[in-house]
Amino acid sequence: MNGAVSERGFAHSEFRARTENAQALMAAAGIDGLLLMSEQDVRYFTGFHTLFWQSPTRPWFVFVPANGQPVAVIPEIGAELMGRSWLKDIRTWSAPAPEDDGISLLHDVLAPLSQTGAKLGVMMGHETKLQMPLGDWQNLMAGLPGLNIVDVTGLVQGLRMVKSGAEIEKLRHICGIGSAAFARVPEIMSLGQPLEDVFRTFRIAALQAGADDAPYVVGAAAQGGYADVISPPTQRPLQHGDVLMLDTGCTWDGYFCDFDRNWAIGTADDAAKRAYDVLWRATQAGIDAAKPGNTCRDLFMAMSKVIAELDGSGGDIGRLGHGLGMQLTEQPSHAAFDNTELKENMVLTIEPSLSYGDGLMMVHEENIVVRGGGADLLSTRAAPELPVIG
Amino acid sequence: MNGAVSERGFAHSEFRARTENAQALMAAAGIDGLLLMSEQDVRYFTGFHTLFWQSPTRPWFVFVPANGQPVAVIPEIGAELMGRSWLKDIRTWSAPAPEDDGISLLHDVLAPLSQTGAKLGVMMGHETKLQMPLGDWQNLMAGLPGLNIVDVTGLVQGLRMVKSGAEIEKLRHICGIGSAAFARVPEIMSLGQPLEDVFRTFRIAALQAGADDAPYVVGAAAQGGYADVISPPTQRPLQHGDVLMLDTGCTWDGYFCDFDRNWAIGTADDAAKRAYDVLWRATQAGIDAAKPGNTCRDLFMAMSKVIAELDGSGGDIGRLGHGLGMQLTEQPSHAAFDNTELKENMVLTIEPSLSYGDGLMMVHEENIVVRGGGADLLSTRAAPELPVIG
Repeated sequence: MNGAVSERGFAHSEFRARTENAQALMAAAGIDGLLLMSEQDVRYFTGFHTLFWQSPTRPWFVFVPANGQPVAVIPEIGAELMGRSWLKDIRTWSAPAPEDDGISLLHDVLAPLSQTGAKLGVMMGHETKLQMPLGDWQNLMAGLPGLNIVDVTGLVQGLRMVKSGAEIEKLRHICGIGSAAFARVPEIMSLGQPLEDVFRTFRIAALQAGADDAPYVVGAAAQGGYADVISPPTQRPLQHGDVLMLDTGCTWDGYFCDFDRNWAIGTADDAAKRAYDVLWRATQAGIDAAKPGNTCRDLFMAMSKVIAELDGSGGDIGRLGHGLGMQLTEQPSHAAFDNTELKENMVLTIEPSLSYGDGLMMVHEENIVVRGGGADLLSTRAAPELPVIG
Repeated sequence: MNGAVSERGFAHSEFRARTENAQALMAAAGIDGLLLMSEQDVRYFTGFHTLFWQSPTRPWFVFVPANGQPVAVIPEIGAELMGRSWLKDIRTWSAPAPEDDGISLLHDVLAPLSQTGAKLGVMMGHETKLQMPLGDWQNLMAGLPGLNIVDVTGLVQGLRMVKSGAEIEKLRHICGIGSAAFARVPEIMSLGQPLEDVFRTFRIAALQAGADDAPYVVGAAAQGGYADVISPPTQRPLQHGDVLMLDTGCTWDGYFCDFDRNWAIGTADDAAKRAYDVLWRATQAGIDAAKPGNTCRDLFMAMSKVIAELDGSGGDIGRLGHGLGMQLTEQPSHAAFDNTELKENMVLTIEPSLSYGDGLMMVHEENIVVRGGGADLLSTRAAPELPVIG
């Protein structure tokens, strides 16, 4: 178990503050309510936390009014758990009900806004999805003709990007657990072990280190380096001369870590050592640039400059890191297109990657929180030279 | 490790058959193409299997034409993996790209259909979500004015409900792993163990039994019975007189098991024993009714009749089981509203629940495959009397 003990959950005051912050921004934008339906947005304003979201059957809705507490419109099976939140107005139906899966209840909540031609904020932008059936959405809108739908992706994601002290403690805790699991890799992996077993063994190590779960474990192992970082593991055994990479999103109390590590198995060739060195320094350049006032683009440029020592392409992965929190990846993106200004208490991944040799790639990732004086590492910094194990 | 060795992946012929079956139904309905974007629908037609779906950043699209192979429109990071599928036409962009996250590529694929006023099938119905930003969807549609969008939820879910032999082998394999993990509970749980550790220990047992992951582990433990089955575990220690329930969705090669088990800790009171007995027999009634030609409603009624011995309410969970496959829960639903006729090779959960005593509930679940002669159990049937452990 990871040493630091963190408390689960949040005080109700945390949700009240989040809601009031949202309502201040809504007032400034003339928005009269938010309709939220994703796990992370519902949890952000209510604290409603359950694995039951993994079942795709039932939709869950929260309405944030211009003033006062949010209203939950949820399946009856969630009434007990939502009843322990700070919300007082919880409306339920016996779901699933294909003919009316919460839509008439939602209609009742939104009808007053429709009558006045009010503005309802919905998440419609980049990195969002409509978390209800498109047909139900179209029916709901048809019954609320005066409603003025506006995109609040920036408003909600902007709030969620800057973490509270309690959120940062949870993120520090799970990053510590991830670091402890990675530290055990030299001891628990062995030559000849199929990659599928390497992944499974790592998952068990993360759970033993105190993770609630290790839902995201990807990686690769191949001679001198790997070419693909998103495929499921095969039965191929770890071999002398492989470069092994493991990337994990582990969770604790609903918050993710997201970082990776590379190891050479038995021996490391010069190309892999060189790629690792460039990436390690690119990561450091990203960490050093992570100061309030700099932008995500600045971080991208700082990392790209080092990467260019070996790889002029800039890579095609599209970005070199992102926000981190209740989701494995959140806004912002460290990319040339993202001019988001860094603020104190943003939690970010620093994730440069590069191509080298004959179609090989290498990735590297650390997790940080932005403080007034610069980045504070949440993950234990990787070794500056490619570790050789086995 | 579970004894039976199953092979990962599918032959390309499996995807060809699925696609041709879809195209036959499309032809009958006058549908000229399908636009698919969920993990399970994309995987069903392509075999594209990666944990990378956990990152909400990038959308993935597959177009199934009236004839010929599907077309993938995906982020560049997935090109290598999709390239190993049976698809030949793979179009990629460097994602994320907030200004155009695959939309212009999609437009090019769909423009010919738009010009002829063709019918494009999209998943819009019950248990689906729009797996792209609502704003992008609206922009895409605005650029394809002649397109006639139709709901194909029934068409696609109808295909996916009936499993192939290779799919059933994967489901049998993971159900065997789940059964092996549950069988170890008496040995790995102990009096005084916090419920949080019980969950973690169970996850590790599932991995050790051969699961790729145990993403869904919920449950409860309380004196004489539990009142809530979706809350995260607390630090409360297991106590003499508790009823412990664990429900798990474990995965192997992208297929889920989904069943649960109950145990009494140290002693079982008469009310819990009676609830268990009624539920066990309700489960049996569901299993016995699971024959081709019966409907989901028939299964619901068969279970409800037994449940009514103790609980006249019929419960408010909305259904007593569901389909199972690439998702923890799939169509159909064993509910009074679902008249889906059972067909050979459907894989289902049989999941009665009831209320008893002072606000307590009990749940029970097995996994089956429907065969010509009736149900074939995939999970190892639970003991007929509430097991007392610890």
